[in-house]
Amino acid sequence: MLFKVEMTVNIPLDMPVETAAEIKAKEKAYSQQLQQEGKWRHIWRIAGLYSNVSIFDVKDAEELHNLLMALPLYPYMDINVDALCRHPSSIRNDDK
Amino acid sequence: MLFKVEMTVNIPLDMPVETAAEIKAKEKAYSQQLQQEGKWRHIWRIAGLYSNVSIFDVKDAEELHNLLMALPLYPYMDINVDALCRHPSSIRNDDK
Amino acid sequence: MLFKVEMTVNIPLDMPVETAAEIKAKEKAYSQQLQQEGKWRHIWRIAGLYSNVSIFDVKDAEELHNLLMALPLYPYMDINVDALCRHPSSIRNDDK
Amino acid sequence: MLFKVEMTVNIPLDMPVETAAEIKAKEKAYSQQLQQEGKWRHIWRIAGLYSNVSIFDVKDAEELHNLLMALPLYPYMDINVDALCRHPSSIRNDDK
Amino acid sequence: MLFKVEMTVNIPLDMPVETAAEIKAKEKAYSQQLQQEGKWRHIWRIAGLYSNVSIFDVKDAEELHNLLMALPLYPYMDINVDALCRHPSSIRNDDK
Amino acid sequence: MLFKVEMTVNIPLDMPVETAAEIKAKEKAYSQQLQQEGKWRHIWRIAGLYSNVSIFDVKDAEELHNLLMALPLYPYMDINVDALCRHPSSIRNDDK
Amino acid sequence: MLFKVEMTVNIPLDMPVETAAEIKAKEKAYSQQLQQEGKWRHIWRIAGLYSNVSIFDVKDAEELHNLLMALPLYPYMDINVDALCRHPSSIRNDDK
Amino acid sequence: MLFKVEMTVNIPLDMPVETAAEIKAKEKAYSQQLQQEGKWRHIWRIAGLYSNVSIFDVKDAEELHNLLMALPLYPYMDINVDALCRHPSSIRNDDK
Amino acid sequence: MLFKVEMTVNIPLDMPVETAAEIKAKEKAYSQQLQQEGKWRHIWRIAGLYSNVSIFDVKDAEELHNLLMALPLYPYMDINVDALCRHPSSIRNDDK
Amino acid sequence: MLFKVEMTVNIPLDMPVETAAEIKAKEKAYSQQLQQEGKWRHIWRIAGLYSNVSIFDVKDAEELHNLLMALPLYPYMDINVDALCRHPSSIRNDDK
Repeated sequence: MLFKVEMTVNIPLDMPVETAAEIKAKEKAYSQQLQQEGKWRHIWRIAGLYSNVSIFDVKDAEELHNLLMALPLYPYMDINVDALCRHPSSIRNDDK
Repeated sequence: MLFKVEMTVNIPLDMPVETAAEIKAKEKAYSQQLQQEGKWRHIWRIAGLYSNVSIFDVKDAEELHNLLMALPLYPYMDINVDALCRHPSSIRNDDK
Repeated sequence: MLFKVEMTVNIPLDMPVETAAEIKAKEKAYSQQLQQEGKWRHIWRIAGLYSNVSIFDVKDAEELHNLLMALPLYPYMDINVDALCRHPSSIRNDDK
Repeated sequence: MLFKVEMTVNIPLDMPVETAAEIKAKEKAYSQQLQQEGKWRHIWRIAGLYSNVSIFDVKDAEELHNLLMALPLYPYMDINVDALCRHPSSIRNDDK
Repeated sequence: MLFKVEMTVNIPLDMPVETAAEIKAKEKAYSQQLQQEGKWRHIWRIAGLYSNVSIFDVKDAEELHNLLMALPLYPYMDINVDALCRHPSSIRNDDK
Repeated sequence: MLFKVEMTVNIPLDMPVETAAEIKAKEKAYSQQLQQEGKWRHIWRIAGLYSNVSIFDVKDAEELHNLLMALPLYPYMDINVDALCRHPSSIRNDDK
Repeated sequence: MLFKVEMTVNIPLDMPVETAAEIKAKEKAYSQQLQQEGKWRHIWRIAGLYSNVSIFDVKDAEELHNLLMALPLYPYMDINVDALCRHPSSIRNDDK
Repeated sequence: MLFKVEMTVNIPLDMPVETAAEIKAKEKAYSQQLQQEGKWRHIWRIAGLYSNVSIFDVKDAEELHNLLMALPLYPYMDINVDALCRHPSSIRNDDK
Repeated sequence: MLFKVEMTVNIPLDMPVETAAEIKAKEKAYSQQLQQEGKWRHIWRIAGLYSNVSIFDVKDAEELHNLLMALPLYPYMDINVDALCRHPSSIRNDDK
Repeated sequence: MLFKVEMTVNIPLDMPVETAAEIKAKEKAYSQQLQQEGKWRHIWRIAGLYSNVSIFDVKDAEELHNLLMALPLYPYMDINVDALCRHPSSIRNDDK
């Protein structure tokens, strides 16, 4: 099942630079692992913002929730979730 | 260049069913042509709504504008546009 | 999978009373059929409003979308969808 | 009487992990006690968010207020309350 | 049980003056009957607007819903409902 | 003259419990004094929230402003004010 | 007592030009009469909009309400009302 | 040229009382000086709020900006600006 | 003086195509005349929308208001106005 | 490609004056360098606010994103981005 997730990151202004760098490195590794497993299908940056648009391909809402809760940056994020389904006009078979 | 476009369709309640069906058929054909040309990369339905989330891959904002203005359902749509760029964590080379 | 769906009905002021009554009767029959099939788990009225809060239990977002699109009152509704998952504090096994 | 309550938890970023864990444990115990007493009928997690959708079955608004005010996480919550009543299309007798 | 209800009336611009006058007369009679029965405790006009703030004293949300649905102006109203309970600082015994 | 005032209290999370208790005690005494003087006509709790709906009966906006500014909890409140006038359908002579 | 009133006029697109001109002429005459009586103290146009910012000086909310309800353009207006009082920094004695 | 400016002051809760008093005294002196120069034409308190509605009479937007930026309370203010022009119904010649 | 004006055009769905084309032609001629006079400095299309961002260079708010009110599409527009002033970091002398 | 970017700066109230002055000086130098390179075409102050309206002329969304992320004040800014394209009524050839 596909979900669109939009994430906006708000790092506290007083977080030490090294701490922020460490969390971001973990976030990147975690994101890339999920991408390689095919669960985090797409991730794009919204131009000018510390925000991304992502497409997740998961078994159900439970799996999505667990994946998001494990994001190292989760405590600093505003999250918006929309459940998606295949569009009748889509010509891509794997775009569900 | 990639853009995320969200479209919500509001067909007037008094539009004859045949007229609506005709416009929707034109919309579908037009969408599929743009998908085949690679300009309309993705289109997903938002569950429960007459709305879609789409990713366009175009030369610039001018091309995006012209493609959207030519949508047969454009006069009945609310449109939201965000410019995207490659995310530093993305592992898909073609996801710009 | 569970979804919370909130529906607000806006019957056009100029719809003939009989037409409205007929659509509402179809809506009620359709809703009760889905409830009997176990797909529409709960439906409550929000006090004072022509709105309901509903819980759907469906295979995936695709099935939810098709069920909602078939609602006789769908063209007159504002719809809001949230994907749900089992809450770690829940003591009801069937509340997923 | 039934109420739908939506709760979003905002734990302060600087709360010590043990303190947060302790409050959450108390919250869980309190929630499960109210569920066993039949006053907190349903609780679902909203996918991707630290939010829940709950249905309370209480004598009146006074009892609801007292139950919510006693939530260990109450000081960190945004709360939204809607009074519900039986929906004329409902087929479940106990769904009031 | 007490509820605060705010109602804003939007009479369609093309409704004949006599029709509007007739509905408003019925509304007034109905409101005064409910006030005499003690169910519609207070009604105030919001200065400058075609809106009122009302306090209802009813058995439960079901009764509130039925009273509001029977308002002759209901189809033209935006409605906002809040469940109230006695305030710990109140000195009026009958203000629940 | 009547005003509806809605107050939402946001006690800072790091305020010592005793300080908060002291301010709330002063607030309660002040509120009850104004109620006894007939200036604070009604106060109700909004169910589930640390908010109240109040009706003030004062000489003019100046007096209302001074009464509110003197609230011990004022620095922690979000305030919303609406001027009221007698509703033509009201049957209570003293409800102005 | 002073009130700030902001009015935005939405003339229906299909109102005949002469009808609109007639209503606007009545509105202007009525506004100027109230200005001469000292009840409508100030009226300014918001640049670029069919909106005004006005200051009324009336006995109470009741009088304000009656004055506004009698505006020939009232049925086409969105209205926003704020009760004002003398500012402690004001040096103009008549600005209450 | 006239501008309507609405200012809402949010003094930080932890600012020492003397500091706040000092800034407010400077603000008052500065405001009264501008009023005497005819640049700050009107200032009214919005009843119940720590907010004001002001009318400025300045040469242009540049002068307005500089006057506002010099407000001692500016760092604690939310500001809203609307450019005004003479209303065709105004009978006061000096109300531009 | 400079103003940023954002205009969104909402042509009624039932306006005859020729009427719309005629109004748009007048709008274009009028806009180009104001551009040639230097009063309408910039106009850009917002990608994907029937909206523009414009910069006007006028004597004062009065002139801006009169220019906008004379737009042939004005009755179908939502308008948003911000007064601008020279930015201290700007290196363009004519960008005021 | 052109983008309109609106930036609102929120300097934390407890930032030392010298630190703020240093960051603003870097911001100004950086902005002026980008203006000289032709990438930051316009920058205007919104009257009364610590906000600007800017027009960027960049190769694509990627370049815009990198330019904005390098703003010394970026961590303290709220940012809003709109992709622009040439308006069919524009008479300025270089306004794309």
